[in-house]
Amino acid sequence: MSAFQLEPWLQARGARVEALLADRLGRLQAAPRRLTEAMAYSLLAGGKRLRPVLCLAFAEAVRGGPPGTAAEDSACALEYIHTYSLIHDDLPAMDDDDLRRGRPTNHKVFGEAMAILAGDALLTEAFALVGTGPEPCRAELASRLARAAGAVGMVGGQVLDIAEDRPAEEGYLTRLHRAKTGALLQAACTLGVVAQGGTVAQVAAAERYGEAVGLAFQIADDLLDVTSSSEAMGKPTGADAAAGRHTFPAVLGLEASRLRARALVEEALAAVRPLESVPGPLAALARYSVERST
Amino acid sequence: MSAFQLEPWLQARGARVEALLADRLGRLQAAPRRLTEAMAYSLLAGGKRLRPVLCLAFAEAVRGGPPGTAAEDSACALEYIHTYSLIHDDLPAMDDDDLRRGRPTNHKVFGEAMAILAGDALLTEAFALVGTGPEPCRAELASRLARAAGAVGMVGGQVLDIAEDRPAEEGYLTRLHRAKTGALLQAACTLGVVAQGGTVAQVAAAERYGEAVGLAFQIADDLLDVTSSSEAMGKPTGADAAAGRHTFPAVLGLEASRLRARALVEEALAAVRPLESVPGPLAALARYSVERST
Repeated sequence: MSAFQLEPWLQARGARVEALLADRLGRLQAAPRRLTEAMAYSLLAGGKRLRPVLCLAFAEAVRGGPPGTAAEDSACALEYIHTYSLIHDDLPAMDDDDLRRGRPTNHKVFGEAMAILAGDALLTEAFALVGTGPEPCRAELASRLARAAGAVGMVGGQVLDIAEDRPAEEGYLTRLHRAKTGALLQAACTLGVVAQGGTVAQVAAAERYGEAVGLAFQIADDLLDVTSSSEAMGKPTGADAAAGRHTFPAVLGLEASRLRARALVEEALAAVRPLESVPGPLAALARYSVERST
Repeated sequence: MSAFQLEPWLQARGARVEALLADRLGRLQAAPRRLTEAMAYSLLAGGKRLRPVLCLAFAEAVRGGPPGTAAEDSACALEYIHTYSLIHDDLPAMDDDDLRRGRPTNHKVFGEAMAILAGDALLTEAFALVGTGPEPCRAELASRLARAAGAVGMVGGQVLDIAEDRPAEEGYLTRLHRAKTGALLQAACTLGVVAQGGTVAQVAAAERYGEAVGLAFQIADDLLDVTSSSEAMGKPTGADAAAGRHTFPAVLGLEASRLRARALVEEALAAVRPLESVPGPLAALARYSVERST
């Protein structure tokens, strides 16, 4: 059907994201060296870069060309915030993880105090990135990013995740993941549209797509934790169950989880049809969110 | 000379800040209850509210009347960020403090994980506050606040403060405190001006005032740690020396520190003369920054 090839597109965009992240971090030369080293250690450690890539894909679709500076700043800010959340989640007081992407976690290398501060700095600098520039969209970028990452979004989801009285129900799991991972993935999509001055209808399409892909991505993550090898993931697998953490496979069963993820992908594909007359990166990324192997 | 009375003005503005903070926090009803409880515990624990009060004072001076919504949002955002920094600074991995303002610290009440997350949420929601609204100044508020609080500002200063190789020199101390406390106090002044659409000259005046008052405030803080009682401060005094922390009195001596603080107050007074034809809250707050007893 579609002639679009995701792999080379993803490689090009991934390389672009790496270059952008290094550039933006390089602007903090007046900051203490040890702090920027700790920030760079986790920020430039690779990873799928799904959030910046989604942001750039929506910006390209809206603009019909390469993303502008506000979209590129947003892409970096999303990865700053994702990275800070990983650093803080890995702390001894939280998940107490020693490994992340096959390397020692930030606090294992720089100490707990510096890991807390590196996370704080990444979170703060994300807003310096989206808030600074002449484009009229800048305030809306900051507002949307903050609400997605804050008490009703990502941080709130993390609180639900560490709560002691989590019910093993699909409704609670969905609420938890909509907040914990879904809100920021959704913001990745909408920020790309807002950064390019997209229409209200385009923002709404990005919201629907982002919500569906965000949840599909999490279900796929839970499935990978059950079915994948530790080597492929770069971290221990089966850790969710070992930690007594409820997952979609545990609550719905493996097969129903797979069906739910596929239905969400169809929702996402329908939402972005008006943005891609011929299926392109947005359609391919929706499929990739559940078909990936790491 | 001046008929302006700071005390009743400060009480009225302080009460206004308490009401604003409770109102803004009350908008997060969709967030997990335990999270907003932890945020409220530290945010609504009293304190001098110096940052919001400075912000409102500059907004009033520029507007010649009561501050607008953008200024009130900025005032709250500044206190959110100050509060998050206290919560994270008190953590066992950082200063490991059990008491703050005469009450158990956040992690002592809610646990370390929740204290980290409450701090993260306060920091993030600060940007939701300044970034959200129709006023054209919103992006600049977010940008200035982020740069003051980030890697080159407050977080960077905290890194300098926990560094192991801190030289006992006035130059290092000044750099440390310009970043750790000065940048946010300076932002408090400039945000008030920017929120009311002040001129470039008015922003520059707020920057000069904020830098001088910020440093004067820190020197006064160091002096109070040496000379005040634990009861009056609501926290142990003499803690700086006990922690092996360099202070202005230790590096410059008591009398030279007092003279330096007074010279800074004179700088601040000169900077805001064009904003206050008759000495008012700005002049009084500059004096208060060094003459306060807690």
